[in-house]
Amino acid sequence: MNRETLEKLIDAAAGRVPADLVIKGGIVADVYSGQFVEKDLAVCGGRIAALAEPGTCDGLEVFDAGGQYVLPGFIDSHIHIESSFLTPGELGRLLLPLGTCTIIADPHEIVNVCGIAGLKYMLVAARDTAMDVKFMLPSCVPAAPFENAGAVLDSWALSEPIKSKYILGLGELMNYPGVVYKDKEVMEKILLAKAAGKQIDGHSPGLTGRLLNAYAATSIHTDHECSTPEELTERVALGMYVLLRQGSACHDLRNLLPAVTAENSRRCVICSDDYQPTTVFEQGHLNNDLRICVEEGLSPMTALRMATLNAAECFRLADRGGLAPGLRADIVIAKDVKDFKVSRVYVRGVLCAENGVVVANRLQAAGKSDDRQLRSSFHVKDFSEARLKLKLKSDTVWVIDLTSGRIVTGKGKATVTRDESGAFVRDDSVDIAKIAVVERHLGTGNVGVALLRGYGIQAGAVALSVAHDSHNIIVVGVNDADMVCGVNRLVEIGGGAVLVKDGQVIEEMPLPLGGIMSDQSGEWVDAKLKAIDHKAVAELGVNKKLEPLMSLCFMSLSVIPELKLTDMGLFDVGTFNFIPLEAE
Amino acid sequence: MNRETLEKLIDAAAGRVPADLVIKGGIVADVYSGQFVEKDLAVCGGRIAALAEPGTCDGLEVFDAGGQYVLPGFIDSHIHIESSFLTPGELGRLLLPLGTCTIIADPHEIVNVCGIAGLKYMLVAARDTAMDVKFMLPSCVPAAPFENAGAVLDSWALSEPIKSKYILGLGELMNYPGVVYKDKEVMEKILLAKAAGKQIDGHSPGLTGRLLNAYAATSIHTDHECSTPEELTERVALGMYVLLRQGSACHDLRNLLPAVTAENSRRCVICSDDYQPTTVFEQGHLNNDLRICVEEGLSPMTALRMATLNAAECFRLADRGGLAPGLRADIVIAKDVKDFKVSRVYVRGVLCAENGVVVANRLQAAGKSDDRQLRSSFHVKDFSEARLKLKLKSDTVWVIDLTSGRIVTGKGKATVTRDESGAFVRDDSVDIAKIAVVERHLGTGNVGVALLRGYGIQAGAVALSVAHDSHNIIVVGVNDADMVCGVNRLVEIGGGAVLVKDGQVIEEMPLPLGGIMSDQSGEWVDAKLKAIDHKAVAELGVNKKLEPLMSLCFMSLSVIPELKLTDMGLFDVGTFNFIPLEAE
Repeated sequence: MNRETLEKLIDAAAGRVPADLVIKGGIVADVYSGQFVEKDLAVCGGRIAALAEPGTCDGLEVFDAGGQYVLPGFIDSHIHIESSFLTPGELGRLLLPLGTCTIIADPHEIVNVCGIAGLKYMLVAARDTAMDVKFMLPSCVPAAPFENAGAVLDSWALSEPIKSKYILGLGELMNYPGVVYKDKEVMEKILLAKAAGKQIDGHSPGLTGRLLNAYAATSIHTDHECSTPEELTERVALGMYVLLRQGSACHDLRNLLPAVTAENSRRCVICSDDYQPTTVFEQGHLNNDLRICVEEGLSPMTALRMATLNAAECFRLADRGGLAPGLRADIVIAKDVKDFKVSRVYVRGVLCAENGVVVANRLQAAGKSDDRQLRSSFHVKDFSEARLKLKLKSDTVWVIDLTSGRIVTGKGKATVTRDESGAFVRDDSVDIAKIAVVERHLGTGNVGVALLRGYGIQAGAVALSVAHDSHNIIVVGVNDADMVCGVNRLVEIGGGAVLVKDGQVIEEMPLPLGGIMSDQSGEWVDAKLKAIDHKAVAELGVNKKLEPLMSLCFMSLSVIPELKLTDMGLFDVGTFNFIPLEAE
Repeated sequence: MNRETLEKLIDAAAGRVPADLVIKGGIVADVYSGQFVEKDLAVCGGRIAALAEPGTCDGLEVFDAGGQYVLPGFIDSHIHIESSFLTPGELGRLLLPLGTCTIIADPHEIVNVCGIAGLKYMLVAARDTAMDVKFMLPSCVPAAPFENAGAVLDSWALSEPIKSKYILGLGELMNYPGVVYKDKEVMEKILLAKAAGKQIDGHSPGLTGRLLNAYAATSIHTDHECSTPEELTERVALGMYVLLRQGSACHDLRNLLPAVTAENSRRCVICSDDYQPTTVFEQGHLNNDLRICVEEGLSPMTALRMATLNAAECFRLADRGGLAPGLRADIVIAKDVKDFKVSRVYVRGVLCAENGVVVANRLQAAGKSDDRQLRSSFHVKDFSEARLKLKLKSDTVWVIDLTSGRIVTGKGKATVTRDESGAFVRDDSVDIAKIAVVERHLGTGNVGVALLRGYGIQAGAVALSVAHDSHNIIVVGVNDADMVCGVNRLVEIGGGAVLVKDGQVIEEMPLPLGGIMSDQSGEWVDAKLKAIDHKAVAELGVNKKLEPLMSLCFMSLSVIPELKLTDMGLFDVGTFNFIPLEAE
């Protein structure tokens, strides 16, 4: 801020000069005093200048809120932009009209694919939206040592980026065993963040008692993995902020709300974690979360604070979180504080969205977001039909059991048919299909092959390059030829999802940015996802109770129980070891 | 923090190794959830390691709290150490046993005398106490342009110190007219603090409405000058923190508490501003403020948060404010949460005070606090009896009217006697005495002379080098000879307070550090102050309803209404102009 700007702000606040914008006739949320008050709000130079008695403000532009509520811009405390399949700019276009003015993004996925180049792309691409994107530095690249990712960011590699002023802190420390059991690299990363005066996001599902104390003792200050009221209560009591999650896949909000009290709510905030266009279109975003909070009995003020003031305090964003002089003029106009239907959104005093439509999505000079590196992320080597052959020493094998609607899998046992060479032969009368993970970053030539039960597929193959967290290629199919066709096509289009039937591609969704993000609109992605899910069921016979794509993309995540497949082989999460397919 | 320390902390938290210290059998204040819970508390490496179920912690040292309350260390959010007349180390010795583990100090007084050398002395001298002293950078040196102080710290002079990691932010911006009317230097100082990412303390007595908005719009984030509930409410609604003041002179706490609600209390904290040994000995410190809060109807938890969590959040002290793993082990053991009688105080896990007595007041290597520059702060030039002669052109003059117990003075009119030369002649039957301010920093030779009504003095003189905020010499007397004697003695002893009667010094309190701080104990200062006040009344006849010393030390403060005297002359605060003594 320069002196001219400061002096103009003071003058506008004092009423000596007209404000740039006056929002009059509204009911203003005073999150500091916990009240809704009839005030006029003056904005100058992108900041709030004054809260004044109704009818006392002059403005160059005046908006009459007509009795609507005037709220601080909403803050999503934890989100992976890539999980929306959208670029930051496009996600901003979708979320802004819903009142989301700030998101705390952890670019964990793209960095697992493209390393620091992925982070840099995101930092610049974030300038394509008026929604303010704050970044955490991914702490777990790769997420686990049991697979090959596109990058390895050890503590040495993080030591400079963590100091950047564009980096708010260290992203979720998913490796919670590494924290509480003092993995050397994890210790170094924590110490780096501390030395830089940065915060550390947590991820500690199920951790309790003394181990949770150990986790908190490292100054990890948040957790967004609570799914029970008890987990929330225990974490808040240890000084952590709990990020109540309401994502596309994980719906923890209603479960957790009973634990939110008048006394502890200031340590509670809201996040989405993973969010897809469909959820945006069908339900909204934080505005919908606020609606749920009120529906579940929270006072509108307590709910609102969770998405504004508390989040700003949690992440030390001193320039936002409320409607007070000097703060960013991030303002949401909502018809009420029950349904939180948003009619207008201002960011830094500029009208950015009106009645659900973005009218300005760029407040600064466009960044030159160089995505060339992201568009050449595929390096598959020595892949052919022969690599899918599954020679077994026994008929009795371990199979990965899909469980509908959950990312946890079961470790199942089955008896399968083999040919004379001992290779697995698909039996169409049994719901067991071949699954393969093809390493696609480093050209290692790694292919892991195993068996999946419960996917329902009866024809062709489904191939996908969105595979948490390393995003190798996952392919499932009833015959090796279609599986190969799917993988080859995926490489050809630079990643995404491909459905193959009888040697023909019957549907595809290119995700050319790192193989995980589209360069198309949210509407396009939504339509594509629906088309793929529809055809996977209708044409390939995939179990209609599953989400055909999303249920596959966690098959490689070797930190989630119970049996997973990586490019390095079949992994038993229970024993944290690779195991052979043969169960006997 | 290094890896060894971190790993040991994790191990102690997890219960794998014994903690350094376990406090068992206590009722622990969980300021995050707003509950008092029976827990054992484990400390390791000066930090809290774990909160555990009773009886589950091993420690090398175990303290059984026997049902007492275990509270986070108290934080005084705003204090001028110099006003206690004590060094930081000595003030710490007095405050630590009362539970005060952190103070936010604004060394405004010593910096007005000694400039940056005064700040440096305080930074180093603060290491003489286990109480953690955080420093704000004085913003108003001099406090006003109407007097000569020992230093001038303009924005240029502040530009480097504000960046120091030892500086928390910019000290109270007392020049609130300069803020709301955009004084160039004030603007520059605000911009410096913002650019350095530092906070700015406020001081805005009486400011309201649009001007208060203008003040807040600059991001000044606190105010400790509220004296009415309305002022508190208005400031919190504008996003400011209100520091409820309970000092030796100003007792605002009870007045303000009716405005503290469950909804707005998180933006309320407690401070003392100016605090003297007598108040410590007779009443306590923050522990007494907490008692008052509860007596006035606040819940113990809400009160406690004001002196702990809220203060830590207000000043972004992320390492304290509650009892949670990873935080500083600043711990107060109190018998109850009604009287808040403190029995033990731990700082960084070390027992520092027990039953009112400090047992460890130094946790780090002693600083080499070089106070030589502070001990040579007197530069008085050309002072003699002749300089006190008060030639008047009229019998009708303006007099400074003392008002008992307030620092505000009145602008009175009186008829006085003059000799043949026109000079003022003291009439013992009228309570009007000569008052002079002798410049003592720069050797300007300035002497301001005026008349004071209501002080009651009937013999001798009182001389004092504590004179807010420039700390020139103030002397009041019934004859010029005794006044000169007082000033000369003051210069001889390097400052303090001197009582003179019939040419003899009858009592004195040397304050050799900058002429405003003692190098003696709190008990010594307390006894001296009492002796001086007693003799001033008994021997010199000073009005016993006044505090004889303290009522004089605000006579030069040219920002407090209505009539004041500086080394440059008689100052009318109402018109912000110097005026002649003659009223006609």
